[in-house]
Amino acid sequence: MKTLWLDRYAQRTQRMQSSVVRELLKLTEQPDVISFAGGLPAPDVFPVKEFQEACQRVLAEHGPQALQYSTTEGYRPLREMIARHTARYGIVVSADNILITSGSQQALDLIGKVFINPGDRVLVEKPTYLGALQAWNAYQTEYVTVPLDEEGLQTDKLEEALRVGPKFLYVLPNFHNPAGVTLSLERRKKLIELADHYGVPIIEDDPYGQLRYEGDHLPSLVVIDNEFQRHNGAPYSGNVIYLSTFSKTLAPGLRLGWIIAPVEVIKKLVQAKQGSDLHTSTFTQMVAYEVAHGGFLDRHVRFIREVYRERRDAMLKALERYFPEGVRWTHPQGGLFLWVILPEHLDASAVLKEAIKEKVAFVPGVAFYADGSGQNTMRLNFSYMTPDKIEEGIRRLARVLERFVARPAVAATP
Amino acid sequence: MKTLWLDRYAQRTQRMQSSVVRELLKLTEQPDVISFAGGLPAPDVFPVKEFQEACQRVLAEHGPQALQYSTTEGYRPLREMIARHTARYGIVVSADNILITSGSQQALDLIGKVFINPGDRVLVEKPTYLGALQAWNAYQTEYVTVPLDEEGLQTDKLEEALRVGPKFLYVLPNFHNPAGVTLSLERRKKLIELADHYGVPIIEDDPYGQLRYEGDHLPSLVVIDNEFQRHNGAPYSGNVIYLSTFSKTLAPGLRLGWIIAPVEVIKKLVQAKQGSDLHTSTFTQMVAYEVAHGGFLDRHVRFIREVYRERRDAMLKALERYFPEGVRWTHPQGGLFLWVILPEHLDASAVLKEAIKEKVAFVPGVAFYADGSGQNTMRLNFSYMTPDKIEEGIRRLARVLERFVARPAVAATP
Repeated sequence: MKTLWLDRYAQRTQRMQSSVVRELLKLTEQPDVISFAGGLPAPDVFPVKEFQEACQRVLAEHGPQALQYSTTEGYRPLREMIARHTARYGIVVSADNILITSGSQQALDLIGKVFINPGDRVLVEKPTYLGALQAWNAYQTEYVTVPLDEEGLQTDKLEEALRVGPKFLYVLPNFHNPAGVTLSLERRKKLIELADHYGVPIIEDDPYGQLRYEGDHLPSLVVIDNEFQRHNGAPYSGNVIYLSTFSKTLAPGLRLGWIIAPVEVIKKLVQAKQGSDLHTSTFTQMVAYEVAHGGFLDRHVRFIREVYRERRDAMLKALERYFPEGVRWTHPQGGLFLWVILPEHLDASAVLKEAIKEKVAFVPGVAFYADGSGQNTMRLNFSYMTPDKIEEGIRRLARVLERFVARPAVAATP
Repeated sequence: MKTLWLDRYAQRTQRMQSSVVRELLKLTEQPDVISFAGGLPAPDVFPVKEFQEACQRVLAEHGPQALQYSTTEGYRPLREMIARHTARYGIVVSADNILITSGSQQALDLIGKVFINPGDRVLVEKPTYLGALQAWNAYQTEYVTVPLDEEGLQTDKLEEALRVGPKFLYVLPNFHNPAGVTLSLERRKKLIELADHYGVPIIEDDPYGQLRYEGDHLPSLVVIDNEFQRHNGAPYSGNVIYLSTFSKTLAPGLRLGWIIAPVEVIKKLVQAKQGSDLHTSTFTQMVAYEVAHGGFLDRHVRFIREVYRERRDAMLKALERYFPEGVRWTHPQGGLFLWVILPEHLDASAVLKEAIKEKVAFVPGVAFYADGSGQNTMRLNFSYMTPDKIEEGIRRLARVLERFVARPAVAATP
């Protein structure tokens, strides 16, 4: 008899769908498409030579160790290096505060696994990172949303949302994906205070924090919280779980991220990770450590900043030059993305269909809204394409948009 | 205020505990301990030179691709290679039937995520692989157990268990972990028939299938099912989900496993994996392909078989020579483990405590029983230690056991 697989799937699969982003990545494989869709680092910034040298050293000096099983917590020298880097921002974090994950996506999944009961509410920004929604949909999460503006999460609208009792709140303070905005210092402080007041933990997702192209570095929430809690030099034990990754500073193909959290939370996450994948690849952890330590990572990040700043500027200039009136966009101080807001009556998904015919791609914003709104928004990535491709792509996209903007709203519904 | 993390954890965490195996692995780090506890491959069989060459070729020829994001399904040439290898056993499997996972442990997790509702029953062998229980405990699984004997799962006791309506049944037909036994051909056929009759899918876990040291290869369940379903050359669409891994044939530090399943099941598992970790490391997938294809993997597996056969024989010989009367053990035809059954009144956990004092370690069997029985059993790994260490370790362990066996049962409870 034929197995009725569909009838065997768990209830949680009903909200698992193929990611729009993943499906769109397939478009970027056609070489003639100018894609602003992915969140891909520029392949020309990957330090290939340094990886070659690191692989040789790791295998020559520690081959059997690098190819063997290892501990769930992660490669200790790598965790110690991350602790040292974090400590530069005025916070005591030891290796015991750190868990290495198989990319930041796994960090999101483990947090869902450890915290979310079916029906639990999670407070997210509006819009928020699609990958977080994907991770937590599998745990049958309900969402409470608080809108963003140019200064990030609107903390004056936060209290009402906190009062519904979310399990935690999830925020991307730096160079937001997808919106490209940065949470102001004042709002960071307000956020820490309110979260403490209502006893709601904060998940701080910071994949791009190192990639700032203008303005001054702002302290991360975990640092502000540490000051707020007055821990006076004890290892971190506050209210923030901090996530970051090597995907944007070294290479995403390694799948290496990390979680910084109070030790008791790390222990619970380690138990969840044991059941999920035992541990992250020993070899990639050792290679990443070999590449990153001794100052290379800092130098390399400076180089990436130069490359991406130029690309961001190329995109902003092209938008200014080509995009029709009535279309707005954010001015990111760092990161990989900017956010375009079309006139209210327009549907970015319809725009995408036309854009693909013109060989240019982006991600419609609706995918980033937990409440299904944001139809008139789009996310543009500026890290993957060269400046001349960026100009050409924005020119093509502007041509498509002009047809939509020119068309009166009534004509859109036949 | 101090965050009350414990009160925030999801209900599913109540059954997440630190793995006994993981905790015991820490013991193996002391160089003077002879450990039969882990499931570690021998480090001296890792093909370090081939990995060095493969890393160089992959980075020199495909550096930017190897370091970039890639598709959730996995690196296509690697999936095609696995499909070709599987096809050698008389079954049509295309790359679309295959999902690359971050080790076999992730395959178990994804299966739990896609299939198990809280309270669902899963049929497992008694004993069964601890990692499967760990993965599925996180989905609040209930277990139905069917005992093993020297010919594997006792299929004459299967029907009663199938009638309680398990979501699926999980079986390790080859060189069982922990028991070291192999499912006979007759029982394999019976299992396929009964599972089809009751409409219960089979998860076939086969990490050691290639590591046979004596006797003839037996067809895997997916092959027998394919014949049973009479698919006549169409890509596989039967009732079995098959799991395997490169951990025992190349290197576990890569974290590379795979799932073979009907295409519709692969699609659902891909959605689950997107939310779990986006994809498995592009770099390790490409390096594994580079090492494995072109015949090296087959040659290397023949070499590993020689090494492990010698170690198995060393352990069997030492057991015969040193172990006291009243203690029984299995005779594995392959794999990494054998199973020791102590007299009923003995507790292997108490034996372990004494054994550690004598600098020898193993895993008490109770961890592998979903119903908490098996107190008088122990798992011995024979792949990790050299033959002379194996002899010495079994000698030490025998000395400890003699004290327990000699002691009358009544004296054990003061």
